[in-house]
Amino acid sequence: MSILQDINTPADLKTLSPGQLPQLCEELREFIITELSNNPGHLGSSLGCVELAVALHYIYNTPYDRIIWDVGHQAYAHKILTGRREQFHTNRKLGGISGFPKRSESEYDAFGGGHSSVSISAALGMDVSARLNDEERHVVAVIGDGAMTGGLAFEGLNNAGVNANDLLVILNDNEISIDPNVGALKEYLLHISTSKRYNEIKNHIHQSLKNLPYLRRFIAKTVSAVKRSILQKSNLFESFGFRYFGPMDGHDIKMLTKVLEDMKHIKGPKLLHILTVKGKGYKPAEESQTIWHAPGRFDPDTGERVQTNKGKVRYQDVFGYTLVELAKQNPKIIGVSPAMLSGCSMTFMKQEFPDRCFDVGIAEGHAVTFSGGMAASGLLPFCNIYSSFMQRAYDNVIHDIVLQGVDVVLCIDRGGLVGEDGSTHHGAFDIAYFRCIPDIVISAPMNEHELRNLMYTAQTGGHGAFVIRYPRGEGALTDWHNPFQKIEIGKSRKLREGTDLAVLTLGHVGNIASEAIQELSETVSVEHIDLRFAKPLDKEMLSNIGNRFDKIITIEDGVINGGVGSAILEFMNDSGFTPKIKRLGIPDRFILHGKVTELTHQCGYDKEGIKQAIIEMTDKNCF
Amino acid sequence: MSILQDINTPADLKTLSPGQLPQLCEELREFIITELSNNPGHLGSSLGCVELAVALHYIYNTPYDRIIWDVGHQAYAHKILTGRREQFHTNRKLGGISGFPKRSESEYDAFGGGHSSVSISAALGMDVSARLNDEERHVVAVIGDGAMTGGLAFEGLNNAGVNANDLLVILNDNEISIDPNVGALKEYLLHISTSKRYNEIKNHIHQSLKNLPYLRRFIAKTVSAVKRSILQKSNLFESFGFRYFGPMDGHDIKMLTKVLEDMKHIKGPKLLHILTVKGKGYKPAEESQTIWHAPGRFDPDTGERVQTNKGKVRYQDVFGYTLVELAKQNPKIIGVSPAMLSGCSMTFMKQEFPDRCFDVGIAEGHAVTFSGGMAASGLLPFCNIYSSFMQRAYDNVIHDIVLQGVDVVLCIDRGGLVGEDGSTHHGAFDIAYFRCIPDIVISAPMNEHELRNLMYTAQTGGHGAFVIRYPRGEGALTDWHNPFQKIEIGKSRKLREGTDLAVLTLGHVGNIASEAIQELSETVSVEHIDLRFAKPLDKEMLSNIGNRFDKIITIEDGVINGGVGSAILEFMNDSGFTPKIKRLGIPDRFILHGKVTELTHQCGYDKEGIKQAIIEMTDKNCF
Repeated sequence: MSILQDINTPADLKTLSPGQLPQLCEELREFIITELSNNPGHLGSSLGCVELAVALHYIYNTPYDRIIWDVGHQAYAHKILTGRREQFHTNRKLGGISGFPKRSESEYDAFGGGHSSVSISAALGMDVSARLNDEERHVVAVIGDGAMTGGLAFEGLNNAGVNANDLLVILNDNEISIDPNVGALKEYLLHISTSKRYNEIKNHIHQSLKNLPYLRRFIAKTVSAVKRSILQKSNLFESFGFRYFGPMDGHDIKMLTKVLEDMKHIKGPKLLHILTVKGKGYKPAEESQTIWHAPGRFDPDTGERVQTNKGKVRYQDVFGYTLVELAKQNPKIIGVSPAMLSGCSMTFMKQEFPDRCFDVGIAEGHAVTFSGGMAASGLLPFCNIYSSFMQRAYDNVIHDIVLQGVDVVLCIDRGGLVGEDGSTHHGAFDIAYFRCIPDIVISAPMNEHELRNLMYTAQTGGHGAFVIRYPRGEGALTDWHNPFQKIEIGKSRKLREGTDLAVLTLGHVGNIASEAIQELSETVSVEHIDLRFAKPLDKEMLSNIGNRFDKIITIEDGVINGGVGSAILEFMNDSGFTPKIKRLGIPDRFILHGKVTELTHQCGYDKEGIKQAIIEMTDKNCF
Repeated sequence: MSILQDINTPADLKTLSPGQLPQLCEELREFIITELSNNPGHLGSSLGCVELAVALHYIYNTPYDRIIWDVGHQAYAHKILTGRREQFHTNRKLGGISGFPKRSESEYDAFGGGHSSVSISAALGMDVSARLNDEERHVVAVIGDGAMTGGLAFEGLNNAGVNANDLLVILNDNEISIDPNVGALKEYLLHISTSKRYNEIKNHIHQSLKNLPYLRRFIAKTVSAVKRSILQKSNLFESFGFRYFGPMDGHDIKMLTKVLEDMKHIKGPKLLHILTVKGKGYKPAEESQTIWHAPGRFDPDTGERVQTNKGKVRYQDVFGYTLVELAKQNPKIIGVSPAMLSGCSMTFMKQEFPDRCFDVGIAEGHAVTFSGGMAASGLLPFCNIYSSFMQRAYDNVIHDIVLQGVDVVLCIDRGGLVGEDGSTHHGAFDIAYFRCIPDIVISAPMNEHELRNLMYTAQTGGHGAFVIRYPRGEGALTDWHNPFQKIEIGKSRKLREGTDLAVLTLGHVGNIASEAIQELSETVSVEHIDLRFAKPLDKEMLSNIGNRFDKIITIEDGVINGGVGSAILEFMNDSGFTPKIKRLGIPDRFILHGKVTELTHQCGYDKEGIKQAIIEMTDKNCF
């Protein structure tokens, strides 16, 4: 008999007896596995959080009490328990529910979470609000050990340690982000987790714990057995003014609910360290955690994953293979990425040159500044960060790369609309936010050969900050392995001559434009330029275009406010040309989740949108 | 007899006997005080670092060994010792040396440092480079306890703990940034510093220390005297894999040189905690550390500061007084700032409503996300961050304010060129980097009344992210205390009717434009619009301008690439208008240091530049 089918809100959950919770967890797990086998999503993290989600909603009075899920793709069980079970099959689909907590979606989603490491800061804000408003409100931040390596989490701890009123941070420690975690913190957590519950030696068992039997049991035992060296390593979080409890098994639902109940009675900042297993309860996912982070479709019974590759190689793999190829020739090349190694295929470099490849953990700012330091010593880092996460290293790029005048290749993966991850993850702003900075090269390859040539060009050095921006997913070619050619910085490519109108495209979207132009070729004579560089612009080409055309369409997979189309508009205006310019790209609103093709259609720069723009601009009626 | 006058490089320094170093320090201090009394600069931090700078260059083989000064205004002694004594009177002046370390200025400046918390990451990059290149190179990062609260510093520690080869981090602990430090880390450092050299209890006195007598003396003593509770608090840095030494007196030059000499023989990541006094050796500066952070001109004998206020109130003070005034009326208002409380005059709020005002330490990202959390609970934070430091919270604004759909007033102080602090500190990019984000209001007051009205308007709520951007320094009025008026979002002000040309200005620079227009009023008929908002634009006004004018000048104290002028260009193009538009503002290159008037002159938007642009555009010859 199913328990889950009757749980529509946390109030329903609270009617269950503690003894029923294990079965509920099992049903939740089965539900998530079945749903995700058909509707792809983030499997591993969510399976690891089933007991935690159940325990939190069982013990706390949500939504009055606030639970903030850091990097919310761990929160599927939370979504299912809070009224979204029946919509769950729409997860990450156009018009469906978001793959992350979202304030506008549910009152139970206290704070939206797509980027990592924000939960402590946001939770502290709510906690302080509760104090100022004299509310008896519990606030809980759930943060992974990966997210805990982000500097923002430490800024939050540092401030919470002196300001928190009744804040509980739950450190969900599964030793892995997308790739296995790295860094001193990981070593530290591993050390304390493997040290016979070292924490149970806490010597300040406060009076307040007297009536809290489960915490006491937790804390009182083995003082004598613990060595001083372990004791010495026990207090990272206490240094920040937090009371530390743990580590404990995050899948023991019985103990978890009891400890959380006790926790409600302890004021001030406190941290509960739980150990969980990413992919818990689904064997294939437990065994290959990186692959099963977001596995795509799969057969839930056999664990066989449905291969969707249609023969084309992904930009990511071309990047990864090419980086290795270049690193073999150029000993100065170093790979750096903040916890995105497998996502950007820098894993190939890590395998081939382990000493020359650095996964620095979820720490985008550090990845860039660390690269700047290496570059100042004459190395040539290729620092790979997804576009939406590069937003977190913006000042580091300005201050620690560009102003230092050093050579760093900033590889921006996931540029443009990314699809199902939605508004927090679209790489929408990068062209605009980098274009305003002096002394920076911004390039975007239209296909795999261009990507390889840009990477080759960048590593010749002397170019300062060199951005190479490309989208998530498949490229445009089948035979991607061309011999390297150096590209002149700022030089565009003319793909087609024309007379009616000029179409200027940046990056991969040029392929879609090519198709559109081809399909209209009997009606409209279109000149097509692949800009290649958003900065510096190809002034010679643009002057030529300005002289020959009074109609221009620019197309970019990024925001049109301030993007490369805007740069071309500036150039034309400043040079005395007055063509009519239609800028296609992401409009001035946040784009939600869905398939990339659905989203570009919404934005009007899929093939149909481009064709329509060409026709409207040239007044040719051929629809 | 002067020792300093013969020190032109660290090689000269090394010829001195250890016994001569105290005198050198005294002379350096006197030199800095004398110079700064006449040529204003950062006094307090640099006086606190005299012994450290001497000791580092005495012991290490610079520039081969690398010293990275975090927030380099502490590095004046370093500059003076490394060949810049005779240029030091040009410090921060147009064409003179920079107030911060700068790679292009000296090979001794291993990494430029204007923004805080970057040194560990950059130093680790150099340290890793040394290992990869098989170089026997020492790398030292000098970081203040204030800078240590920045998340980037923790990201650096976390990564260094597992990767560092021979990295020394010197924690220069003076308990103050510009304002006294805050947060759990401060409490922690204070605790260990006042606990009878608690650290000397280290129980792992490594074999490697056997021949390092000064470190041993340092470490061996009082184990028995130290309580367990102190022991428990001793290991924040060791949790990150660093070996911790200290705290020690950072003004004891004799001990400092000896300890540093010993340190050279210890491999791996290590941290030396020194205690210093900001303003050391100059009584007025020691006594009033915030004021003497950067005191302006003063009489070195009496300590009397030269008042330069010409009767006009600074924008900062209008902000500070107005915030208090509004907070009295609106209990939802909260003040938040990352270690810029006195700089932005939020100190008034702190005095009046201590519970409703938060200095979160040097932690820009946290300041914004914390504000987002409070706003999600119904409070209305005014979060004040200098423009160039807002670059560090860019993703937080997007992810934790705008995407959450909450009301936060983002007060951007130091918008535009700031003068003597130079390229790292100019607030150049903010309009461009915010303009590309949807659902954000960007405003800039032209004078004090406008600032007050914008603040009043913002706190009425319902506007989401509301940016109010204003410059450093004096406003335009004398009677600034107007009654509040609500402003319609996106509504501009027409300041003057005209027929020849339209001048559209954003913010304070409108006053300069007004003067220029007035002076040309007999020759050219100029319509002057104060835009007030960079986003949303006043489309009605712009359509009117587009219909009536074929010549437009836009003026902003920010980059013209992607700035508000670019937004107006986009509007005109998209609306079918084709005026010629001249955009005045910061060109596409980094602007160095000097007086604001000198720099705006360089950029062509001082009064003369504006006049010239008007004349050139209208072809009126009146020069």
